Amino acid sequence: MNHIEVCFSPDLIHLHELEGKIVVVVDIFRATSTMVAALANGVKEILPFADLESCRAMESKGFKIAGERNGHTAPGFELGNSPVAFLSGNYSGIRLAMTTTNGTQAIDKSQGAAEILIGAFPNLEATVAFIQAKGKDVLVHCAGWKGRFNLEDSLYAGALVKSLESTHLADEDGALAMKSLFEREGHQLKTYLSQASHAKRLQNHGIDADIDFCLTLDLYDLVVKVNEEGFLVQV
Amino acid sequence: MNHIEVCFSPDLIHLHELEGKIVVVVDIFRATSTMVAALANGVKEILPFADLESCRAMESKGFKIAGERNGHTAPGFELGNSPVAFLSGNYSGIRLAMTTTNGTQAIDKSQGAAEILIGAFPNLEATVAFIQAKGKDVLVHCAGWKGRFNLEDSLYAGALVKSLESTHLADEDGALAMKSLFEREGHQLKTYLSQASHAKRLQNHGIDADIDFCLTLDLYDLVVKVNEEGFLVQV
Repeated sequence: MNHIEVCFSPDLIHLHELEGKIVVVVDIFRATSTMVAALANGVKEILPFADLESCRAMESKGFKIAGERNGHTAPGFELGNSPVAFLSGNYSGIRLAMTTTNGTQAIDKSQGAAEILIGAFPNLEATVAFIQAKGKDVLVHCAGWKGRFNLEDSLYAGALVKSLESTHLADEDGALAMKSLFEREGHQLKTYLSQASHAKRLQNHGIDADIDFCLTLDLYDLVVKVNEEGFLVQV
Repeated sequence: MNHIEVCFSPDLIHLHELEGKIVVVVDIFRATSTMVAALANGVKEILPFADLESCRAMESKGFKIAGERNGHTAPGFELGNSPVAFLSGNYSGIRLAMTTTNGTQAIDKSQGAAEILIGAFPNLEATVAFIQAKGKDVLVHCAGWKGRFNLEDSLYAGALVKSLESTHLADEDGALAMKSLFEREGHQLKTYLSQASHAKRLQNHGIDADIDFCLTLDLYDLVVKVNEEGFLVQV
């Protein structure tokens, strides 16, 4: 058996060993859901940035730019952090530069892993199948909210632990706890997560369609990884 | 309604507001359980130290000294971190200086709260009654294991959230998640926690009696707080 563990915050990732592991970065509301939606709908590759300025500068290099801070599109950016935005319109073949409040920072801090994947509910089963074919230990890296634990990323972690239970032993405390949590609440994701602080934050912004999308399972048979040049691409 | 939230690691406590809140520090295996056991069995007061040297120096000032690192009694210390040690022997009226791997650090980092309580399963209901009489917001500060999430402190957090649900709203993600976890696993604490990494670590040390003690509910009608001089005392 391989092993699976969960880190609840980029501020705690230094306490985990990354070497040799598949790290699955997850920021359900909404960065990693948006990345999966973008690549599933024609975007060729995504370059993640931790800061706004570096991201904005990519516009002059032929990239479309997406920037979000605190749930809103950042000033001067064409796109924000809405997955639903990629479901219509023509994004075929474009290159996207993207920065978000939490998600892109978590990708940045996952350097050193054998492989970095981007996890979201819409591509959960595809990610599970990819991991099981690889046979490596897994670390779920939850982006959280400004360093704090959040419910939606943690529940995704629980869903992944549960889905991998035939191949990956959950013998680490975070993985054990999230497996139990998902077993209890996973049948009613949308209802349960409507209590989550970030869902409330997003509801206040009037983006229910995004929330629905982010909590929909297995829309795409698509695995997203960070390649050697740091681009997010389809495997 | 008041509110309750959970912080899973002393390394994340800076992300939480402490002012005006009752902070309940919890390190189930074993620091806060031992503190409760000591005060319930005659110890007059406990002075917590983050480092071994300052703690050891208290021996010359008439204190008994208790020091633990990585689950073992630290060299040169009379007592380690075993609650069961306080159930026999005569500790009546003694003053205790104590340092542990995780628990005393969490107390140290809780400065700034309106009140700091020491939480453990053996005094859960007494702590609940005290909090409900005060009518303040609550933050559960889990000591974790060297900065990482752990199962036993988190489950205590869940138990406290659940016990306070008539007076304290769990509208923060950590509190919500731990309430669900406790609802699922709280009926079988010992079985469930036997999977936890720190319980395994302690079992390897041959201290099953400590684990049993730490997971026993409501042995004592005792509330433990940090007083203005930094001593742990009965309320």
